[in-house]
Amino acid sequence: MKTILSGRTREVVIETGGPVVIIGETINPTRRKKLVSTLEEGDFSYVLELAASQINAGADVLDVNVGYPGVDDVKLLPEVVCAIQDNFDIPLCLDSPNPAAIEAALKVSAGRYLINSVNGKEESLKALIPVAKEYGAAIIGLCMDDDGITNDPEKRLSIIERIIERAVTAGIKAEDIVADPLAMAVSADPQACLVTLETIRLVSGKLGQNITMGASNISFGLPDRESLNTAFLTLAVYCGVTCPIANPEKITAAARAADLVLGRDDFAIRFVEYYQSRNS
Amino acid sequence: MKTILSGRTREVVIETGGPVVIIGETINPTRRKKLVSTLEEGDFSYVLELAASQINAGADVLDVNVGYPGVDDVKLLPEVVCAIQDNFDIPLCLDSPNPAAIEAALKVSAGRYLINSVNGKEESLKALIPVAKEYGAAIIGLCMDDDGITNDPEKRLSIIERIIERAVTAGIKAEDIVADPLAMAVSADPQACLVTLETIRLVSGKLGQNITMGASNISFGLPDRESLNTAFLTLAVYCGVTCPIANPEKITAAARAADLVLGRDDFAIRFVEYYQSRNS
Repeated sequence: MKTILSGRTREVVIETGGPVVIIGETINPTRRKKLVSTLEEGDFSYVLELAASQINAGADVLDVNVGYPGVDDVKLLPEVVCAIQDNFDIPLCLDSPNPAAIEAALKVSAGRYLINSVNGKEESLKALIPVAKEYGAAIIGLCMDDDGITNDPEKRLSIIERIIERAVTAGIKAEDIVADPLAMAVSADPQACLVTLETIRLVSGKLGQNITMGASNISFGLPDRESLNTAFLTLAVYCGVTCPIANPEKITAAARAADLVLGRDDFAIRFVEYYQSRNS
Repeated sequence: MKTILSGRTREVVIETGGPVVIIGETINPTRRKKLVSTLEEGDFSYVLELAASQINAGADVLDVNVGYPGVDDVKLLPEVVCAIQDNFDIPLCLDSPNPAAIEAALKVSAGRYLINSVNGKEESLKALIPVAKEYGAAIIGLCMDDDGITNDPEKRLSIIERIIERAVTAGIKAEDIVADPLAMAVSADPQACLVTLETIRLVSGKLGQNITMGASNISFGLPDRESLNTAFLTLAVYCGVTCPIANPEKITAAARAADLVLGRDDFAIRFVEYYQSRNS
C-alpha cells in the first residue's frame, strides 16, 4: 500500500514493506521555549532553522505543531506552513488538535500534506474527514476514541478500522489513512511498548496500512532515551511502522540500519550514504 | 525453558522470554594481535584484562576462543580456562573447532560451561555429544551440517531439531541445547538477516529453545557497525534470542533497552542501574 505525499514539487512515497520515511518532530513547542518566543514575535527564522537541520539529518516530511498556551493557531499554523513551504520543497504533517487550524493550513498548502490527526471520537471524525476530503489530504488515524485509550491491541485495531471505514465512506482512499497505534511511556506501564508493537502487527497484518507513531514518547521520564527510542523504533519498523514521527538527528542512523537489516537497502547504498554524509 | 550455567559458585540462568544474557565475545584472537602475542609468551595478563573489562561492561558469560594458526589448543584452552576461573566467578563458553581442546577444557572446568559449538555434521555430533554428556556441559547447536549452510529457515530449523534429537537420545536434556541460527554478513547477502530472524522465530516458536548467535557478524565489511549490530540484536531478541555472543562494551545498552521495551525489566531497574554504572 502506498501513501503518496508531496511538497511543492517533490513526492514522498510511504510504502508498506518499504524503507523508513522519517517525519521530523522538532517543530513542536513542547520543551522548546525558543520556538514559542520567536513565534510570538512573528519571527520565523528559528522554525526555518529547525526545518533545515531536520532535512539535513534525514527528515522526509516535517511535522508542524505550533500549539502553545494562548496561541491563535488558526492564524499561526498557516503562516508557519507558508514560511516553510516557501523555503523547502518537503511535504508537511499538520499537527493540531484544532480542526479550524488544520483547515486554515490546508487552504494555503502547496502540496499534498498529512493531517495529524483524526481520532475515533465522533467529534474528530465529523470535523476532519470532510476537510481531508475537500483538500485531498492524507490523514493520520489515531487509535483512541470517546472511551479514551485502551490497552487492548484488538480494540486499538478496531478504532483504526472504524476511522478507515468512515473515511472511505466519505470518499477518501484507504491508502491515504496512516494508522497511529499510540506509543505510551514505558516508565508508566511496563507493558506499554508491547501493546503498541502488537497493535502495529495487527494493523499491518490485517489492514495493510502504512503506520506512523510518535517514536520518542516511550522513553519519557527515563535516562538514555536514545537507546530506548532506538530499540523501540527498530522493533516498530520490523512490526510494520513505515513513517515514524521522530527526531531525525537522533534516529536516522537507526532507521537506516533497520532498513538494511530488513533487506530494504540493497548493497547498503542508503546506509553508507548516510554514514558518509555524517562523517564528511 | 531454562538453561542453567555456572561459574565456580555463581549461577547464570538463561530463560526463554527472560532478560538478555550476554556472552562476551572479545576473548578471541581474530583481529587481536595482542591476544595472540601474549598467549604465545604464556602471559595471561591480557586475557584476564579482557575478561575483567567485559564483566564490568555487563557480560554474564565469557566466550573463550584461543584459536590462532599453529596453536596447541588442547594445551592452551584449559590453561586459559584455569586462569580465568581462578580469577572470576563466571560461566565460560568453550569455543573451539577442536573437540579434543573442548574436552581438555571441560576436564579442568570449575563450573557448568557451554560448548561452542556442536553442529549437524556427523563428525561433530559423534565427537562432542558424548563429551557434553560426560562432563554435564550445555551445548550450542549450530545450524549447519554436511551440506553446508542453507538459506532456508525451515532447513536450518531441521538441523537444530536433529542436533537436539541426537543429544536427547544420548541423555542430554533438551533445555541444555542452545540453538545458534547462524548470523551472516548482510553486505554479502541483503536477505541474510531476514533468514536468521525467521530461523530464530521458527526455533523459538516450534522448539522453545534458548537461542544464541554471534551478534557482530552481520555488519562485517560495513561502516558504523554499532548501529547495525544494535538494530539486529534488538530484532533478534524480539524474535527469541536470549543469549547473544557479542561485545558487551558495545551492546549492553541496547540489550538493556530491548529488555525494558519488551516488558522484561519492571520499573526499569536494570536499565537505570546500567546507565548509572556507565555514568558514575
